[in-house]
Amino acid sequence: MINKTRPSPYLLLANISQLLTLHGENTPRRGRDLHEIGLIKDAAVLCGGGKILAAGSQRELLRDPWLRSNRRKVQEIDCEGNVVLPGLIDCHTHPVFAGPRLVDFEKRIGGADYEEIAAAGGGIRSSVAGVRGASRGELSKKVLAALNAMLEQGTSVVEAKSGYGLTLEDEIKSLEAIRDAARQWPGEVVPTLLAAHVVPQEYAGKADDYVKKVCDQMIPLVAKKKLAKYVDVFCDRGAFTQEQSEKVLAAARKHNLGTRAHVCQFTAAKLGPLLEHQPASFDHMDCVQPEDILLLARGETVAVLLPGANYFLGHKEFPDARRLIDAGAPVALATDYNPGTSPTPSMPFVLSLACTHMKMTPAEAIAATTINAACALQMQDRKGSLKTGKDADLAVFDVKDYREIAYWFAWDRCVEMVVAGRIVGLDT
Amino acid sequence: MINKTRPSPYLLLANISQLLTLHGENTPRRGRDLHEIGLIKDAAVLCGGGKILAAGSQRELLRDPWLRSNRRKVQEIDCEGNVVLPGLIDCHTHPVFAGPRLVDFEKRIGGADYEEIAAAGGGIRSSVAGVRGASRGELSKKVLAALNAMLEQGTSVVEAKSGYGLTLEDEIKSLEAIRDAARQWPGEVVPTLLAAHVVPQEYAGKADDYVKKVCDQMIPLVAKKKLAKYVDVFCDRGAFTQEQSEKVLAAARKHNLGTRAHVCQFTAAKLGPLLEHQPASFDHMDCVQPEDILLLARGETVAVLLPGANYFLGHKEFPDARRLIDAGAPVALATDYNPGTSPTPSMPFVLSLACTHMKMTPAEAIAATTINAACALQMQDRKGSLKTGKDADLAVFDVKDYREIAYWFAWDRCVEMVVAGRIVGLDT
Repeated sequence: MINKTRPSPYLLLANISQLLTLHGENTPRRGRDLHEIGLIKDAAVLCGGGKILAAGSQRELLRDPWLRSNRRKVQEIDCEGNVVLPGLIDCHTHPVFAGPRLVDFEKRIGGADYEEIAAAGGGIRSSVAGVRGASRGELSKKVLAALNAMLEQGTSVVEAKSGYGLTLEDEIKSLEAIRDAARQWPGEVVPTLLAAHVVPQEYAGKADDYVKKVCDQMIPLVAKKKLAKYVDVFCDRGAFTQEQSEKVLAAARKHNLGTRAHVCQFTAAKLGPLLEHQPASFDHMDCVQPEDILLLARGETVAVLLPGANYFLGHKEFPDARRLIDAGAPVALATDYNPGTSPTPSMPFVLSLACTHMKMTPAEAIAATTINAACALQMQDRKGSLKTGKDADLAVFDVKDYREIAYWFAWDRCVEMVVAGRIVGLDT
Repeated sequence: MINKTRPSPYLLLANISQLLTLHGENTPRRGRDLHEIGLIKDAAVLCGGGKILAAGSQRELLRDPWLRSNRRKVQEIDCEGNVVLPGLIDCHTHPVFAGPRLVDFEKRIGGADYEEIAAAGGGIRSSVAGVRGASRGELSKKVLAALNAMLEQGTSVVEAKSGYGLTLEDEIKSLEAIRDAARQWPGEVVPTLLAAHVVPQEYAGKADDYVKKVCDQMIPLVAKKKLAKYVDVFCDRGAFTQEQSEKVLAAARKHNLGTRAHVCQFTAAKLGPLLEHQPASFDHMDCVQPEDILLLARGETVAVLLPGANYFLGHKEFPDARRLIDAGAPVALATDYNPGTSPTPSMPFVLSLACTHMKMTPAEAIAATTINAACALQMQDRKGSLKTGKDADLAVFDVKDYREIAYWFAWDRCVEMVVAGRIVGLDT
């Protein structure tokens, strides 16, 4: 474990047993190609100015004339035969909450399901009470703690949603808490407004009025303050209808914000009309219809699968990744970090779930958490694969074979993180 | 994280939000009582000479006249409102192996099951080749790495089996590797001979001859060398028959070794005849018969459930803990750490599995990994609960409510370990 952040204009990661370059690509990997992760044995990576300068065979790289004559300027990390890959990208999280939902947890063990807990006043609404009662500083501290826990397990980019405020002030406060935390965190945070997470208690029976408020007040103000890159909506039974969801996404587009949507977690949505709003991703996708899978296969919208929620809710079934992959839909994976249905910051555990319970190969799961997750956040030009000129975000795992990252479970094997070309401390 | 082992004759853990004493008991908790974990709020623990001197309300403890006049002799740990409980006890592990089984892992993702992989020459037998080819020193290093990973997540006692050697020399080498590692590890290791893990290739079709060798050569020599406390046998389809298993356990008893058995993972065994050999535990128990549950409810043999294997094998079903608990059988939980079916060192993850997939409450799961796990290793007089005179093995988790230990998953919240009254380093 590295304890200090040491700045360095040039950094060489040497003695890498397996380097996963993801072929340096800028497009989502699909179908059979999802398995192609660009593995280079006995490799090295040279970083400079926060970017990848070269990534490939160590023997070739060490022959580079510039490197030979400038070796003293270059800080070196001996990777000791470990595996190096792009920093993992967690493209779906809800980190702005005040505390764990332990009562829900015990109720569920006693037999209540997600919707029964919500109906009993637990669920998302209890987190709403927590966020409304907390200060921006308190929330920011919790967000930063979560980001650091994610970093410790190999994650260098995190999408972070609001969604437990549900008033103009509390959604702004949540997004400001994300921004404050992001400023203190070495990785990159992509903020998303999820005011349309659930209809707040005070709008019970008046969902359309709340949607109007989201569209006419919240989205414009968030856009003006530049507090979010995306607007998300939870389109499902118990949350927002298809029609309401489309309104939210249309308002986002009107204000030049990107779009994404929670769909098909409990019931199937019609994805065609939602696709009109060019969402970067559709998330959950447990019960997506075959005809909608074909739509995804033809487009750029990424299916983000969130098996942590299935795990934590005690479900026997997981999202059907194979059906999506085999049809050619671009697939990503994320933690869904949140207090009600997926309290884990661990992308390696998501890799484990994808392999053991969704029958993705370790290579497919790694592509889904690097280049494809970058595509889900539309930052594939800078993130998610190793190519000269891309951001130098790298995770070093204490394993000799990349498959071990998904094989050992609930065992943090990430030993070093490089973010924007700098070594960052993991003991935070 | 504490980085140094500092000896101290007296140690005070102060400012504990919730202390779980397990009522200081020396018997397994059963049925409704499994949930009773002896929670004390605003507590402190005083340790001396490696033992618990007092555990209870901090206000009362700080009024103790001896403590008041000897405060300067006492090293203090400020637990900062965290939760403290007895060090977790992992009562079923197989840590002596040479490497991960990545080919099996990928084959299983492709659709092969445990028995198909074994039939194809993978499975246990591939680990046997690895152990036979490795030196005692190499194996010991791997065992120590596993023990340290366990310690980092709150475990202070580990049962460790041989079972990938399957020759006299290689089983002895495996048990010596366990002993060598245990000497370098601060916690306590309970060694078990599992020569009857599977019939080795060279005895194919001559299983009875192998059983004879186990009974007549291996068990006597291991007993003579004092290399194991227990003898274990894998009684199931593809391993050893009921009759063969009884022979192994009888031989163990003849040589004054304790007994335990892997049973009912794939097919139901008849537990009555095996109980004649007074096993400390029956492990796995996925398909135990109702009449055998009643036998356990009347006796002292602990049912050790191993949900990590179900998780890693991609099973939808988990051991039916509720049926065992409700019948009054003593239930414990363990990782089953091994390269083929459960590569995790994490007892907190086992708590998570128990709660989310076996519907045990967090309190029940904690009792199953402390006092009941101590009973499964017949060390309940010294371990598993907090009482004056018992060993001062304590885990500090960075949470405010004990339920969080099972709630957050794949997130190591253990921040400090005290073993035999001393702070031990977690950065090993």
